[in-house]
Amino acid sequence: MYDGIVQDLIDEFGRLPGIGPKSAQRIAFHILQTQNFDVTRLAELLTEVREKVRFCEVCGNITEQERCSICRDPRRDQTLICVVEEPKDVVAIERTRQFRGLYHVLGGAISPIDGIGPDDLSIPALMRRLGEGEVTEVILATDPNLEGEATAAYLSRLLTAIEVPVSRLASGLPVGGDLEFADEVTLGRAFEGRRAVE
Amino acid sequence: MYDGIVQDLIDEFGRLPGIGPKSAQRIAFHILQTQNFDVTRLAELLTEVREKVRFCEVCGNITEQERCSICRDPRRDQTLICVVEEPKDVVAIERTRQFRGLYHVLGGAISPIDGIGPDDLSIPALMRRLGEGEVTEVILATDPNLEGEATAAYLSRLLTAIEVPVSRLASGLPVGGDLEFADEVTLGRAFEGRRAVE
Repeated sequence: MYDGIVQDLIDEFGRLPGIGPKSAQRIAFHILQTQNFDVTRLAELLTEVREKVRFCEVCGNITEQERCSICRDPRRDQTLICVVEEPKDVVAIERTRQFRGLYHVLGGAISPIDGIGPDDLSIPALMRRLGEGEVTEVILATDPNLEGEATAAYLSRLLTAIEVPVSRLASGLPVGGDLEFADEVTLGRAFEGRRAVE
Repeated sequence: MYDGIVQDLIDEFGRLPGIGPKSAQRIAFHILQTQNFDVTRLAELLTEVREKVRFCEVCGNITEQERCSICRDPRRDQTLICVVEEPKDVVAIERTRQFRGLYHVLGGAISPIDGIGPDDLSIPALMRRLGEGEVTEVILATDPNLEGEATAAYLSRLLTAIEVPVSRLASGLPVGGDLEFADEVTLGRAFEGRRAVE
């Protein structure tokens, strides 16, 4: 145990995800001992981020303005909406440079264990956007796990009912991976989703 | 890449030791999305720690006062000084509850590769403390690695020259470990340091 505020700082860092007590201690000492680590900058950013960053009023992505940079971009294809769980999924998909449409960030996935039902997700906002009638395809890009699949199944029922074309990202073997190391579910999906070779 | 300050916050977290880009992103989003994470508290602590925490003017340990809590404690054995590299070593030794003397924190170890020589360590302050004549034993508790051993060798030459009794922490097999997994240097040290069984 350390004296007073050093221990407080260690405890506070230890509350962040993925940072155990040892890492928290290492970080606190780094901050204490590295004179060129800009502690004021980090402190200011923390406050600023909480004050300024909000969720895009259209798609739910993070932004410092009312609408995020993707929703504001007129060059994006307004007829495609890719539905994701979290803002970080938007970043992951943007990195592929394959998708030029818009996003819709649900803010999570259906998870009865965590008490998260459809009402806790940004589904009404999605339905409103689809009601405007411009959209020709909704791509469900929720995570390929239990919660993500449940959410995709729920949404696909909802969307086919209002006659919006829905698709789901392909599941299969990761590129660059070894077949023998693939788990049975992934391998099973790879079989199901096999394509004819031309 | 994210918009503006969110990316700035991710970058700033990424500059902390042991935090890669992925962890930095996870932490930033945790802060953004967890309303009950006290961002103001962390921001305040960061500034406060830099302002208030300093090094004990006697031993070099961290403290919020002129002298650290150990140097201020009259019940500690004033005739024993345990020399360590960093304040976190003090905490590690205190946890054993085996040592009731005082400490001296060098602020690092001799490391020619990193450009750290004896002059960069708090050695003059140690010599001053020894000059006061109360100390009957100096225990060298620098790390059992190349730099720590070099520092211990340097100090032991210096201290035996002024006729202060010096000891070094024992090296050997870690308690609870498996002999077969010990590296050869550790195993060699365990042989060197073997003790007669009574």
